[in-house]
Amino acid sequence: MNIDGEPYRTIWRDPDRPEVVQLIDQRLLPFEFSVVDVTGSAQMAQVIADMVVRGAGLIGAAAGYGMMLAAQEAAELGPDARSGHMAAASDRLAASRPTAVNLAWALGRQHEALEGLIDAQLLVETARAEADRIADEDAAWCRRIGEHGRPLIEDIHRRTGRTVNVLTHCNAGWLAFVDHGTATAPIYAAHDAGIPVHVWVDETRPRNQGARLTAWELGQHGVPHTVIVDNAGGHLMQHGLVDLVVTGSDRTTFTGDVANKIGTYLKALAADDNDIPFYVALPSSTLDWETRDGVRGTPIEERNSAEVTHIGGALGDRVVDVRLTPVGTDAANYAFDVTPARLVSGLITERGVCAATEDGILSLFPERRPS
Amino acid sequence: MNIDGEPYRTIWRDPDRPEVVQLIDQRLLPFEFSVVDVTGSAQMAQVIADMVVRGAGLIGAAAGYGMMLAAQEAAELGPDARSGHMAAASDRLAASRPTAVNLAWALGRQHEALEGLIDAQLLVETARAEADRIADEDAAWCRRIGEHGRPLIEDIHRRTGRTVNVLTHCNAGWLAFVDHGTATAPIYAAHDAGIPVHVWVDETRPRNQGARLTAWELGQHGVPHTVIVDNAGGHLMQHGLVDLVVTGSDRTTFTGDVANKIGTYLKALAADDNDIPFYVALPSSTLDWETRDGVRGTPIEERNSAEVTHIGGALGDRVVDVRLTPVGTDAANYAFDVTPARLVSGLITERGVCAATEDGILSLFPERRPS
Repeated sequence: MNIDGEPYRTIWRDPDRPEVVQLIDQRLLPFEFSVVDVTGSAQMAQVIADMVVRGAGLIGAAAGYGMMLAAQEAAELGPDARSGHMAAASDRLAASRPTAVNLAWALGRQHEALEGLIDAQLLVETARAEADRIADEDAAWCRRIGEHGRPLIEDIHRRTGRTVNVLTHCNAGWLAFVDHGTATAPIYAAHDAGIPVHVWVDETRPRNQGARLTAWELGQHGVPHTVIVDNAGGHLMQHGLVDLVVTGSDRTTFTGDVANKIGTYLKALAADDNDIPFYVALPSSTLDWETRDGVRGTPIEERNSAEVTHIGGALGDRVVDVRLTPVGTDAANYAFDVTPARLVSGLITERGVCAATEDGILSLFPERRPS
Repeated sequence: MNIDGEPYRTIWRDPDRPEVVQLIDQRLLPFEFSVVDVTGSAQMAQVIADMVVRGAGLIGAAAGYGMMLAAQEAAELGPDARSGHMAAASDRLAASRPTAVNLAWALGRQHEALEGLIDAQLLVETARAEADRIADEDAAWCRRIGEHGRPLIEDIHRRTGRTVNVLTHCNAGWLAFVDHGTATAPIYAAHDAGIPVHVWVDETRPRNQGARLTAWELGQHGVPHTVIVDNAGGHLMQHGLVDLVVTGSDRTTFTGDVANKIGTYLKALAADDNDIPFYVALPSSTLDWETRDGVRGTPIEERNSAEVTHIGGALGDRVVDVRLTPVGTDAANYAFDVTPARLVSGLITERGVCAATEDGILSLFPERRPS
């Protein structure tokens, strides 16, 4: 999507130096915009570990490019050393964010593409092509999610004749993927098609990905938006100020239960209580085909309590962490919650929109139907 | 309640200088504890306007003491000037927080007590006695709320045999009143009676009264507690980690709809979805006997968006405001929301616990029954 009027992806190969990967440093957004040159596979592992890049789709693409960098390094070594180097680089990348599903998946794609290749040029060209393919596919899936979701916004506009107010939680935006995002994809598609749309952006404590990232990317692309505290959505819904809720998902069970950033469940309850459609946008790669009861069965990560007791923000031209609580206060920090399928109006996937039920999901993914 | 082991109120007359009022400066809590000497009625109006003190009950008590200070000043003037000074001081106090219901109410009490008094000594003694009475009554009402609410906690402990987990939102604690608080009163009463109780403290964005004030006062009194982001309560309730929710209320309709800090409604929805009792503690002075539909009929204050885009916190030994959003981002800041009566398990008042219905409320306040 656009940054200051120029189209960008979150990760790309430098057109002038095709062996160099560039990516947006997301740690200091929205306070500072900077692009990082990544020239080696070890640096890419570090970049992932340091959360310079984050988000399911983007981590997968970064891992794919990490293997391209590894292939470039291997090509400089003797033929006997190449496969050892590739294996070591892959292990290092795999360990950089061990719980990221897309990371392991992208490494698996590269392993398959590169298996048995020793010839230096072939190794490099194949790894480069596969890395580009992983990134392009991520962007294409998100674009299709946008196309499938756009009519939800369009229909509301057609019915009401006014700006459509969409509420979203956290950042399931293009910054979390290679382009378009998931929850934001229908919004960008509608906006780019000239449908008037305005976004209520939950700030999304504790890490404030809404206030920091979603607000920034919507602003850069020119989509009208307003940041609110996470407490506000229920009130807005009670007063007809929200037409549609769209969030992303970290993991959705085949029965339609949605694990997503902590607080998503509260917004789903409020949408349900006010008869407002609540949709979840997700690439099918995040479907969990094993777990039937998402509320009981999804492991919920507990993170460092300092994310609750402290917060980062801009002080003049510095970014600092300030303490919000009395010294020594205990805090708990659950990263995700699970929204039961009964509260979800539908799922927006790269194959289309379906009900958040086993039957609905299988109607789009019939190859998963138990034989 | 206790601060560092010593019993305190939020406002009191200095025992050594009965003409001086002392109060806790709440603006910098929990980062700094300091007591302010208030020696004149104009200073008291400023102290209220600057939010050195806040909270319904405390503002009322401060206004009562403001009129005591005015009477002391009037006693120094000639008899002809006294009533003019009292009227001017009262106007200044009334204008210091114009929307605070308790402020007008406390001034009315003093007007009634002081009406027609000119004699200097009588004026001072009467004003002092009435100010003490207003403060004592506030503390006594809150203590009674605690006594009536304590069995709710006690019963859960008796049934489960373990620590009772109470979730609260914002600060309806003793810092908002003269002592005990409303939502916290049953918690302090249970804790002081030896019932094991632990409090989940919603940080309560945007002004973080939970993280700053509730966490501080519970910590000072020795009540176990954990601060959470406002997004977390639903997840905790889904997983059996909350036994009871108790909040305060800024205004409750005679039909049981509860206006309280933004986000209260979301917690009520989650409590309802998980069959967890959701109680609201309030002094009957905050009952609204006019409005039938609280959701439609309660005016909701919109506050400065800077409270959303910025936050105050401790940086070393300084307290600073940091910016959380991209430069120029719009933010909306609704101060309250309304929880419909159907989501409220009961109201805890100074007269007892009742259903959040017109009949329930009238059963405790039969004098309000339409004749």
